[in-house]
Amino acid sequence: MKALVYHGPGKKAWEDVPDAAVQDPTDVVVRVDTTTICGTDLHILEGDVPTVAEGRVLGHEAIGTITEVGDAVHAFAVGDRVLVPAITRCGRCAYCQQGTPSHCQTVGGIGWIFGHLIDGTQAESVRVPFADTSLYTVPEDVPDQQAIVLADSLPTGYEVGVLAGGVRPGDTVAVVGAGAVGLSAVLTTGLWGAARVIAVDTNKFRLEKALDFGATDMVEVGPDTAVEVLALSDDGLGVDVAIEAVGFPETLLTAASLVRPGGTVANVGVHGTPVELPMQDLWIKNISITMGLVDTVSIPTLLKMVASGKIPAEKMGTHTFALDQIDQAYDVFKHAADNLALKVVLQPA
Amino acid sequence: MKALVYHGPGKKAWEDVPDAAVQDPTDVVVRVDTTTICGTDLHILEGDVPTVAEGRVLGHEAIGTITEVGDAVHAFAVGDRVLVPAITRCGRCAYCQQGTPSHCQTVGGIGWIFGHLIDGTQAESVRVPFADTSLYTVPEDVPDQQAIVLADSLPTGYEVGVLAGGVRPGDTVAVVGAGAVGLSAVLTTGLWGAARVIAVDTNKFRLEKALDFGATDMVEVGPDTAVEVLALSDDGLGVDVAIEAVGFPETLLTAASLVRPGGTVANVGVHGTPVELPMQDLWIKNISITMGLVDTVSIPTLLKMVASGKIPAEKMGTHTFALDQIDQAYDVFKHAADNLALKVVLQPA
Amino acid sequence: MKALVYHGPGKKAWEDVPDAAVQDPTDVVVRVDTTTICGTDLHILEGDVPTVAEGRVLGHEAIGTITEVGDAVHAFAVGDRVLVPAITRCGRCAYCQQGTPSHCQTVGGIGWIFGHLIDGTQAESVRVPFADTSLYTVPEDVPDQQAIVLADSLPTGYEVGVLAGGVRPGDTVAVVGAGAVGLSAVLTTGLWGAARVIAVDTNKFRLEKALDFGATDMVEVGPDTAVEVLALSDDGLGVDVAIEAVGFPETLLTAASLVRPGGTVANVGVHGTPVELPMQDLWIKNISITMGLVDTVSIPTLLKMVASGKIPAEKMGTHTFALDQIDQAYDVFKHAADNLALKVVLQPA
Amino acid sequence: MKALVYHGPGKKAWEDVPDAAVQDPTDVVVRVDTTTICGTDLHILEGDVPTVAEGRVLGHEAIGTITEVGDAVHAFAVGDRVLVPAITRCGRCAYCQQGTPSHCQTVGGIGWIFGHLIDGTQAESVRVPFADTSLYTVPEDVPDQQAIVLADSLPTGYEVGVLAGGVRPGDTVAVVGAGAVGLSAVLTTGLWGAARVIAVDTNKFRLEKALDFGATDMVEVGPDTAVEVLALSDDGLGVDVAIEAVGFPETLLTAASLVRPGGTVANVGVHGTPVELPMQDLWIKNISITMGLVDTVSIPTLLKMVASGKIPAEKMGTHTFALDQIDQAYDVFKHAADNLALKVVLQPA
Repeated sequence: MKALVYHGPGKKAWEDVPDAAVQDPTDVVVRVDTTTICGTDLHILEGDVPTVAEGRVLGHEAIGTITEVGDAVHAFAVGDRVLVPAITRCGRCAYCQQGTPSHCQTVGGIGWIFGHLIDGTQAESVRVPFADTSLYTVPEDVPDQQAIVLADSLPTGYEVGVLAGGVRPGDTVAVVGAGAVGLSAVLTTGLWGAARVIAVDTNKFRLEKALDFGATDMVEVGPDTAVEVLALSDDGLGVDVAIEAVGFPETLLTAASLVRPGGTVANVGVHGTPVELPMQDLWIKNISITMGLVDTVSIPTLLKMVASGKIPAEKMGTHTFALDQIDQAYDVFKHAADNLALKVVLQPA
Repeated sequence: MKALVYHGPGKKAWEDVPDAAVQDPTDVVVRVDTTTICGTDLHILEGDVPTVAEGRVLGHEAIGTITEVGDAVHAFAVGDRVLVPAITRCGRCAYCQQGTPSHCQTVGGIGWIFGHLIDGTQAESVRVPFADTSLYTVPEDVPDQQAIVLADSLPTGYEVGVLAGGVRPGDTVAVVGAGAVGLSAVLTTGLWGAARVIAVDTNKFRLEKALDFGATDMVEVGPDTAVEVLALSDDGLGVDVAIEAVGFPETLLTAASLVRPGGTVANVGVHGTPVELPMQDLWIKNISITMGLVDTVSIPTLLKMVASGKIPAEKMGTHTFALDQIDQAYDVFKHAADNLALKVVLQPA
Repeated sequence: MKALVYHGPGKKAWEDVPDAAVQDPTDVVVRVDTTTICGTDLHILEGDVPTVAEGRVLGHEAIGTITEVGDAVHAFAVGDRVLVPAITRCGRCAYCQQGTPSHCQTVGGIGWIFGHLIDGTQAESVRVPFADTSLYTVPEDVPDQQAIVLADSLPTGYEVGVLAGGVRPGDTVAVVGAGAVGLSAVLTTGLWGAARVIAVDTNKFRLEKALDFGATDMVEVGPDTAVEVLALSDDGLGVDVAIEAVGFPETLLTAASLVRPGGTVANVGVHGTPVELPMQDLWIKNISITMGLVDTVSIPTLLKMVASGKIPAEKMGTHTFALDQIDQAYDVFKHAADNLALKVVLQPA
Repeated sequence: MKALVYHGPGKKAWEDVPDAAVQDPTDVVVRVDTTTICGTDLHILEGDVPTVAEGRVLGHEAIGTITEVGDAVHAFAVGDRVLVPAITRCGRCAYCQQGTPSHCQTVGGIGWIFGHLIDGTQAESVRVPFADTSLYTVPEDVPDQQAIVLADSLPTGYEVGVLAGGVRPGDTVAVVGAGAVGLSAVLTTGLWGAARVIAVDTNKFRLEKALDFGATDMVEVGPDTAVEVLALSDDGLGVDVAIEAVGFPETLLTAASLVRPGGTVANVGVHGTPVELPMQDLWIKNISITMGLVDTVSIPTLLKMVASGKIPAEKMGTHTFALDQIDQAYDVFKHAADNLALKVVLQPA
């Protein structure tokens, strides 16, 4: 079969690899019907993720059809249409039993293994371990274009942003960074009744997308960002929840400057350097700062909301490519804002 | 009457001041029967808290007897024995109505006003605003020696450490810094069923006190602090909750290094400088970092636990002084560890 | 001034009474600009609430303007436009400090005192005790027609139905009884992300209103009510939350029959008789049954949601009357379903 | 092998049955080292549980050693010492993924299958399905005498009583019925910081056991039960949580009469008949009534608390028998109170 193989920093190729096959009785094989590219894939190609070995098939998001099942698989059968999430869940370690497979101890201490520790989903087929506890059935009325967004980016914005941030009815929420993950947070703030959602970004295209996705206000980043956001908040004291969806020191500090006493800064961004936090000002503010990898356990909830028409997830996929045009798709996604792109959708020709 | 007056950095005097008196119909006046000194008072004398004006009477903790009540006070009468907590609660601003008077907007945006924005409790008498919503009746079977600890240090360790940290049954908790506030956290971890409590400090006296106060293990700070603490935790992955009770960058970083994926760092310490947080390592760990000022709303709960004999709060008061020996009391408290002191108790001669 | 006075079962009169006046320094007097009638008022007139003495002015909901303030009132001034909620909050008893003034111990063990233990709001003016902790400022952009619904019925459906029921994103919710309070629950299920809301009633007008107010499905009561509702739920196992908004044994049993294992029955209805609960079937289902009086503490949240346009509260007021036409308003409201009425709105001529 | 076989109401025999063997790749076989008898076993023998077929091996609690493992079992190996809990957890249905295997849809809609829908643990060996997600490793320092209590009764009292009841620090808790499950609740109220625990029973032996297990007060059932319990509660308003651990209408009504406004009645008892609930009095009290089957997901927490010496679970086993004396053990357990028995412990001779 064909797959996108990582050959070290800056190098990748769509090439022949051995067919995916069941190895353990709890495995299934899924034929990939739809996949996409994540910001993390770009980091890997920049050489920032040394745990990815050369020769690894990339990708950790897919919608597909089961073509082979192991002997111990109870819940799925050949022909089932499934969502392969970014996170693998053994179902029995302490983390999985608490609903936090992001740190599944069985699969390596971290639940993200596709396109990282095992071969991934940017391929014609993929082996899925612990299928019973990891896969989700896709309802008939949810098309691939919607469902693919639920494999990683939508649950990331929702779980690491909205849920960890503790958004509650009536809240004012600021989302710093309106890329795919920030917009996923915007899309899902309504699930917890946010009254006001303020998108903060440098890019006009993204800010306008944010309004389209449900933000009530937008603030273009500038010298007065904090002043403008605070002016939109209750009593001018700041927002209840500030979601950071970029991953730089300055964006995290911006988020921290927006939050009112008693509020929460939910960091969703992937950071590469330390951040100097003004603890001399923050300690007294009764704030929480949360951070982490997605668990993808919210997928059943998000599937219901998408199926009921309450989350227009399909708006996230701005560009579509054939699977063998994946190099071109990476190019478009690498310069997403310039290309007016959010997520790219890849499907077999 | 006599009171301890702040006269600028390094200067204070036990001297005559005008008698405390009711100013607003919601005020009462309390004769101070017992007071104490807080680490914050030392910070003020070092000039670190510029919002304290010269001429201010210091102190924000007292047990006393009501001698005068305003016309609008419903819940208290002359002669009542009350606990004056560090935090004043107007009862009607959004923060107070949510149970977070630490940021009471009515009294100045911060609930800590005694010995800060108004005259305090290191005096023969003190005016208490918003008495109905701020004061607590002290049960007869709780002596002053126990109750005084509930005015600030015990609720601080409990609310900002144990509660904000989200300690839950079966948890392993590390407490970094075993001074009065760290020990208050140790004393109250059992209220949420901690299975293991590890005290971390440089000082042997404090570590032994921690064991006496309910810690199950102690680790003396050294090059292998984190290794030793992790060895005591489930699967060696780290503690569920790390409580920081010192206020320096290195102690906060130590706390952050002890916590397992999915855990919480509860910062209780008062910080004076920024802290460089290794976000490149932490972002993926699904941790929360909490911080803040005490609300003192846990006082009713803590009074019940003290009255039932389940929290031996009286162990915290290691030294007793007459009120007019307050200079001497400050000297002992300033060098608490050397003097084998935790809290000093001050009472009229 | 004029007011509606209760003269024993079945008897009431719009007549002269002494002017409302400040009695305690924490009181204010509010001129009534808008009031309404509650189902509870009908119960009183039927003689079902013996704690209402003859001579009592009825009513517990108002929007108005402050005309007099007591000496100890800090937060409000003459001329302020305020919402007078059904529940009075002393702000200092244990119940009030926990945010549950429904059982305020200071005002009589129950927070509902207007038109019950003290004179009420169906009058030209009303004395409001504990004004600072009880009243809410009405934002300029929220007209009386919307705000009046927040004095009792909307928070009742929200707090006692949606909040107590623990509605969470993705949930399926059944609302048994689509009168004013049931429809209030329907209107607010979206604040917690309900995916599906099923209205259950015998009355077509109310069922259609429910769809207009946000229900996704309606089931007319009949022999197969439970079968039809279960068919709409995930896996056919039942709804996550069943809200009972009527107050009869059969409606509570219907609600209990709709809920899936692990779900919640939130009883909002006022009951007059015992209910025989099939505990032999229910004990194993891991359900909760909640019940209670509103606290009205959700009013700030609901005001924000109404102001942001996310809750069309004004749809609830179907009929408008002058204050001195109150007898006629009672007649319409008493036969609400026949008159295609939900809430009646009363304003000075 | 030998096992206790059910032969219809009133009939059972310790007799030869086919050896337990792996059937599915996710099964293991456990040699039973310790088992016990549950009140539910008595109900089965009385013919009250028609879903138990004749020929079924009884029992749903065991500590044992693995003797055979299926091909898909990852977490356990032959020779491992394990706890077999009352509840089986497939790990992948919606209920299991939410941590509520009491209603596991895969194994039959109810997680209790041993000695019910499949052969149980009152045998020399037992087949355990879904071993990876159901079994728990027993720490070396926890002896069988302690661990066996964690298979059902201790988690039942804890989860269905203390957890469902929402016990919080400072609470006053009443436990109605001080048998094995009620005492399990008493033993675990301290995990959530109960200040006062009042045991209510008709039997002096059980009441004294309750004091030994950590209750602070006891009330012998009589005409003034409620008066006496309320006198022990804050302000005389009633307890925060009333745990019902018997299963009769009168005991549930007693529990409901003890709870203060805003409190919770946690029903643990197994009911056989309807209960007439005084909803005309209760609806206004803002109480919750919870009920259900145990999930046994608290076992890891309870194992830590037992290992740390904080829960003396071994006190529950009052009588020990050889496995082939099981008839005698049933006789003693059937008349537990008369025999001064709580749990009987059965081990191979």
